[in-house]
Amino acid sequence: MHDDTETSTSWLSPDDLETARSLVPMVYVEAIPIRVDGSGQLTHLGLLLRVRPDGSISRATVAGRVLHHERVREALVRNLEKDLGPVALPRLPASPAPFMVAEYFPDPIISGYHDPRHHAVSLVFVVPVDGDCQPTQEALDLSWLTPDEIMAPGFREEMAGGQERLVVAALAHCGALP
Amino acid sequence: MHDDTETSTSWLSPDDLETARSLVPMVYVEAIPIRVDGSGQLTHLGLLLRVRPDGSISRATVAGRVLHHERVREALVRNLEKDLGPVALPRLPASPAPFMVAEYFPDPIISGYHDPRHHAVSLVFVVPVDGDCQPTQEALDLSWLTPDEIMAPGFREEMAGGQERLVVAALAHCGALP
Amino acid sequence: MHDDTETSTSWLSPDDLETARSLVPMVYVEAIPIRVDGSGQLTHLGLLLRVRPDGSISRATVAGRVLHHERVREALVRNLEKDLGPVALPRLPASPAPFMVAEYFPDPIISGYHDPRHHAVSLVFVVPVDGDCQPTQEALDLSWLTPDEIMAPGFREEMAGGQERLVVAALAHCGALP
Amino acid sequence: MHDDTETSTSWLSPDDLETARSLVPMVYVEAIPIRVDGSGQLTHLGLLLRVRPDGSISRATVAGRVLHHERVREALVRNLEKDLGPVALPRLPASPAPFMVAEYFPDPIISGYHDPRHHAVSLVFVVPVDGDCQPTQEALDLSWLTPDEIMAPGFREEMAGGQERLVVAALAHCGALP
Repeated sequence: MHDDTETSTSWLSPDDLETARSLVPMVYVEAIPIRVDGSGQLTHLGLLLRVRPDGSISRATVAGRVLHHERVREALVRNLEKDLGPVALPRLPASPAPFMVAEYFPDPIISGYHDPRHHAVSLVFVVPVDGDCQPTQEALDLSWLTPDEIMAPGFREEMAGGQERLVVAALAHCGALP
Repeated sequence: MHDDTETSTSWLSPDDLETARSLVPMVYVEAIPIRVDGSGQLTHLGLLLRVRPDGSISRATVAGRVLHHERVREALVRNLEKDLGPVALPRLPASPAPFMVAEYFPDPIISGYHDPRHHAVSLVFVVPVDGDCQPTQEALDLSWLTPDEIMAPGFREEMAGGQERLVVAALAHCGALP
Repeated sequence: MHDDTETSTSWLSPDDLETARSLVPMVYVEAIPIRVDGSGQLTHLGLLLRVRPDGSISRATVAGRVLHHERVREALVRNLEKDLGPVALPRLPASPAPFMVAEYFPDPIISGYHDPRHHAVSLVFVVPVDGDCQPTQEALDLSWLTPDEIMAPGFREEMAGGQERLVVAALAHCGALP
Repeated sequence: MHDDTETSTSWLSPDDLETARSLVPMVYVEAIPIRVDGSGQLTHLGLLLRVRPDGSISRATVAGRVLHHERVREALVRNLEKDLGPVALPRLPASPAPFMVAEYFPDPIISGYHDPRHHAVSLVFVVPVDGDCQPTQEALDLSWLTPDEIMAPGFREEMAGGQERLVVAALAHCGALP
């Protein structure tokens, strides 16, 4: 689930953002923070806890819009800092290619990724994080889960918009499926 | 260089397209057609020959906009058919992740990828093509180049907007640098 | 589970193969055959049915050793033909980089990938297959499974040696997790 | 060019190593160290300076054999420490999949990658390095080169065995081709 506060930082008025959304797909970046051991092996995967517009609570990735004239890397840095705080020390990927692309649509049937607000094409990256994470803004918390916890029955239901599949794909990409 | 005829197929009026371009980055797909041998090894790489807005001629990748509510795969199929004709038989990649992302800006300094019309985030794919290619619409021709021809001095100057680097990156990705 | 008939095609005597296995890791290739639709989207994933050394039956990937002085691509072609027959029409990947590496050890604890015979480093590729598959040699059958069937409870137990994780990783890589 | 001192650390006698090399391909790991800026963008690429067996000097990647029963990650850590010293602080990749595979043969024609000693299948990784690098053992020096220096005429001749193509491929993979 993408956050709903983008309008405050996007240098677009709510009206302009609505206009853009009605015309073209939005470009998003999405980061899945991980903890790794000394050999680079994933040990934990981090997920935000958010209150959704309907008042329910769900786990979520770090996500946000790529602004007009902003580099993808800058958008990743900005959104990681927004959601994890200023001392998370994310290690941004050396390659600009995402490990996955998620296509969010208002109609949940089209791709299985669902965002009621708009059509968004999201570039998804796995980002090792070394420092202290202090969830900020609208995130209630950040929790670190083991691969076993993520693959346990019931985990799927804790996420929304199809993002649970991005989390499993991140585990698979890191060779960390239990 | 992206083509300039998108407006005719984009289901957006020129005015609406201008509005969108002034507010947010555009989502593009870009395909680099290749010929492969029986073991999948790249033998040739295909480039379009286009007349640029200033009347000069340059080589170009297959590229086009992802439309509102269109899947990335559909945009790839549509743009490949538009540029290579209906019997090119492209083999679309099984993974939705591009091998490269190119960020085009009106200011050529920002990323080295340049498009005077807008800020575009382009998902770039290598696409093996088995069939007959019949360049259509505004492309003058499609030519198949060997890795040696691509790496020869002077090739860089035949492309525009920084795309020559995507072509070298495609060769490298396919283990085909000479 | 790797097949046990490699010795017959490896141009090594059983004694020489035993010697090599006792000294260094073996290089393997592993292919996960898939069916795709016209836009490249995975619809089915193919798995062999094999009798294991202990008489039990399990599903397995296409796998085999890279021979001395053999290219990785040649090993892929040879093993795909051995397991799927001569008219499977596999589309070998354009990139020589595997989407995953699996490290098999005689001790199942080390990596979760287990092969009682040796330490093997396996380069794993997803291979779209267009033609008729006629399992040959020791494979009893090839079956095509949907993503839903693969993620259903109980599927894990139908595979051995940790390979069920490669199958899930292949689905994830192809953006096909249900 | 791979180093010639592996026998001393490989827990194989020279005779056993010769035997293994005569029977099967060797498994190698290869690391290309890079410096990145705060957004993960490559700024420099590190290459060792080595004396080759014939007395000439060439630039080389960090490379070494994967030992019997050793994990690929452990081999990467061990070889990075051997060549860059104990305080280089390499950030090992989260994904076990290499960005490239290089196949070295005694016959330089087969793949363009050449090692007179043996057939080796090398898993190649890009490794951001944060700390101080103190080349050890047989490496004379480590130098950090910019993308422009690597793509300059004449650079190719400073490397051997085809490795210059791995360096260009690493730049391309990191979106850093000039």
